[in-house]
Amino acid sequence: MKPYAQMTKEERSAEYAALQKEFQNWKSRGLSLNMARGKPGKAQLDLVSDIFGLMQKPEDYVSGGIDVRNYGEMAGLPAAKALFAEILDCKPEQVFVGGNASLQLMFDTISKAYTHGLLHSPRPWGREETVKWLCPAPGYDRHFKITEFFGFELITVPMTETGPDMDLVEEAVKDPAVKGIWCVPKYSNPDGVIYSEDTIQRFANLNAAAPDFTIMWDNAYCIHEFKGDYVPFPDILSLCADAGHPDMVFEFASTSKVTLPGAGVSCFACSAANMTHMTGLLTPQVISFDKVNQQRHVLYLQNKAHTLELMKKHASIMGPKFRAVLNALEKEIAPLDIASWKRPKGGYFVSVNAMPGTAKRTWELCREAGVTLTGAGATFPYGKDPQDRNIRLAPSLPPVEELEQAIAIFCLCLKLSALEKLGV
Amino acid sequence: MKPYAQMTKEERSAEYAALQKEFQNWKSRGLSLNMARGKPGKAQLDLVSDIFGLMQKPEDYVSGGIDVRNYGEMAGLPAAKALFAEILDCKPEQVFVGGNASLQLMFDTISKAYTHGLLHSPRPWGREETVKWLCPAPGYDRHFKITEFFGFELITVPMTETGPDMDLVEEAVKDPAVKGIWCVPKYSNPDGVIYSEDTIQRFANLNAAAPDFTIMWDNAYCIHEFKGDYVPFPDILSLCADAGHPDMVFEFASTSKVTLPGAGVSCFACSAANMTHMTGLLTPQVISFDKVNQQRHVLYLQNKAHTLELMKKHASIMGPKFRAVLNALEKEIAPLDIASWKRPKGGYFVSVNAMPGTAKRTWELCREAGVTLTGAGATFPYGKDPQDRNIRLAPSLPPVEELEQAIAIFCLCLKLSALEKLGV
Repeated sequence: MKPYAQMTKEERSAEYAALQKEFQNWKSRGLSLNMARGKPGKAQLDLVSDIFGLMQKPEDYVSGGIDVRNYGEMAGLPAAKALFAEILDCKPEQVFVGGNASLQLMFDTISKAYTHGLLHSPRPWGREETVKWLCPAPGYDRHFKITEFFGFELITVPMTETGPDMDLVEEAVKDPAVKGIWCVPKYSNPDGVIYSEDTIQRFANLNAAAPDFTIMWDNAYCIHEFKGDYVPFPDILSLCADAGHPDMVFEFASTSKVTLPGAGVSCFACSAANMTHMTGLLTPQVISFDKVNQQRHVLYLQNKAHTLELMKKHASIMGPKFRAVLNALEKEIAPLDIASWKRPKGGYFVSVNAMPGTAKRTWELCREAGVTLTGAGATFPYGKDPQDRNIRLAPSLPPVEELEQAIAIFCLCLKLSALEKLGV
Repeated sequence: MKPYAQMTKEERSAEYAALQKEFQNWKSRGLSLNMARGKPGKAQLDLVSDIFGLMQKPEDYVSGGIDVRNYGEMAGLPAAKALFAEILDCKPEQVFVGGNASLQLMFDTISKAYTHGLLHSPRPWGREETVKWLCPAPGYDRHFKITEFFGFELITVPMTETGPDMDLVEEAVKDPAVKGIWCVPKYSNPDGVIYSEDTIQRFANLNAAAPDFTIMWDNAYCIHEFKGDYVPFPDILSLCADAGHPDMVFEFASTSKVTLPGAGVSCFACSAANMTHMTGLLTPQVISFDKVNQQRHVLYLQNKAHTLELMKKHASIMGPKFRAVLNALEKEIAPLDIASWKRPKGGYFVSVNAMPGTAKRTWELCREAGVTLTGAGATFPYGKDPQDRNIRLAPSLPPVEELEQAIAIFCLCLKLSALEKLGV
């Protein structure tokens, strides 16, 4: 098969007709397959079933003299802080351990900035004329939504192979209305890019005009390799401190894709001054988070080495799924020169760039054939992909057999929409 | 012993000198006793240990076809909604089941009103010139703090034997700046008052000038009798709906004092229209709450009747503690005519009104002797009791032996501060 662009119109028409038959075949099977969200699959959930057997003995209820079953310790169980600190390579006192969702902690950070202001804010962000926010894209739709919810002006920063385009970021932060940026620094959502050391250092050295400029460092996939060994990653907190900006960053993480999605434990990490400010702002809202679940996780995960062993087991489930997706793209799409994609070694997504102007059409065709994808455009601010080309695939949920069907249909729909674009 | 006010100054001086010796004795023992917060005691926590043994079998992970271990169902597990609906006597579809804390849900409701507005808000409350809020007092300090945090003007409404002074409430809501009221309608915090049917009906019939006037109905102690049988309680949602105000109320509840404080499950209940509006506002913040813990509670509590059986066991632990406190007050303080108090049959507190101008002094003396109480003034808006007389006792945490010491010291300090006030 040669690249579609090199085909004559007749060749394309013949190809289109043949693929249409295939498409009708798939459609007639009435499938319902889902590659929309980064949901772990059942095998991954079963992997951690032992977590339910913990907390049986009275001594399990007590951690460092604290009865985890009662109110108290708003900033989290010290043992849980220590666990996250080891994983993130920061200090236990820099860690605030929260509830079941890091998204909630991110929302709270922005919400507090909006209603009351962060540590160095001249005024609450809700009292500013304009708040602008940098959104590396393709990126995570739920990040963008939070800042959209509060009416910020979202500014797209293109992603590169080494992270966000730092020339643009350094230029943008000269505007005092620019208050922050979303980052997924390791296995970025959806590109799977690991920010380079140079990128990270440039983040730490940012000289933002806004005194309360904030890097929202969502280290969601900090230990989520599915191919190869654990990749060490710099501690952004100490880099920012070394650069003289200790309060410029909030880091986030959770066990949602380590233990149980929506029933794990989340945290944020920040400077001592930010911790004091933020716990003050959280005091009217929270007596304490679920320390029983924090303790359950401390007992289950134990330490970083033991957690990385568990991640190897997740990898053994995730690896084949990503291979299925990448192999299909390689075999079906690469020769046609109608799309490009990243080959991540961790995280939860494969980011596909289709031929410009065909992402939405591909999404529609997939839906027609019973395959649910993340909405085309979702990886850009306001859900609008200016080139209508990025599609995020989430291979984690379906079993491999289903995934193979889903990716076959996706490839087919990519082809159909490319042919339609090129003319048939 | 006769009332202090009827004593001569010499008699009071002699009494004061004798009590001072007793005080020094207690002080020298270096005790550390706590009656400050409504924390369940260890015996209550041990009561529910079986909850940790659940969720062992694969079928336990699935509820109504939903794998509780994965993301999804933001408004809560249907089975958990049904459980709370039975307890609160409302409809399952009116219930949103959240995380470990109803305080968080209350905070979120006010926070969303502030940043975005409630269903009938002309604009976000943060854009209003002034927001006024009614605070029945004595009341719950954490309620008052939430509305203080957002800069509302707190207006004190005196509590009566039948609930808040409804004449004042009906008058106050004629002001369109008055946006809502805090209520703990059953076993009010701290008075232990059950709102009368007439009070509740007047709430449902309130004709507030503000279109978005909101009753924050914190039914925290809805099944928390420690003396006598379960007391049925009207469903405020249907009363408000019948009165033509379906969207005027949000009800809250949790299992913090049914299963585990800070590790239970919380909920709010509201009209269908409010549910749509509020889930929309929560979408950017939450993927889903901890459904594993929701399911754990469904399996453990089963239904209302079974839950009430558990509450009887809590009552058997709480009852003696309240008796110890009330007996001591009756024996030591009643004859002296220096304080009054309520005799609640449920809830978590005993509300003592000391001689005006002596609550802070009593609190200080208690602290000196090693007894921690809720801060004097805490039960009023801004932490300021205009008469400096209300003290909230929380007898639940200490074992009975310790509690007997704590209440003995409290009575002693009440006497000392009354004598100082009367002159010695």
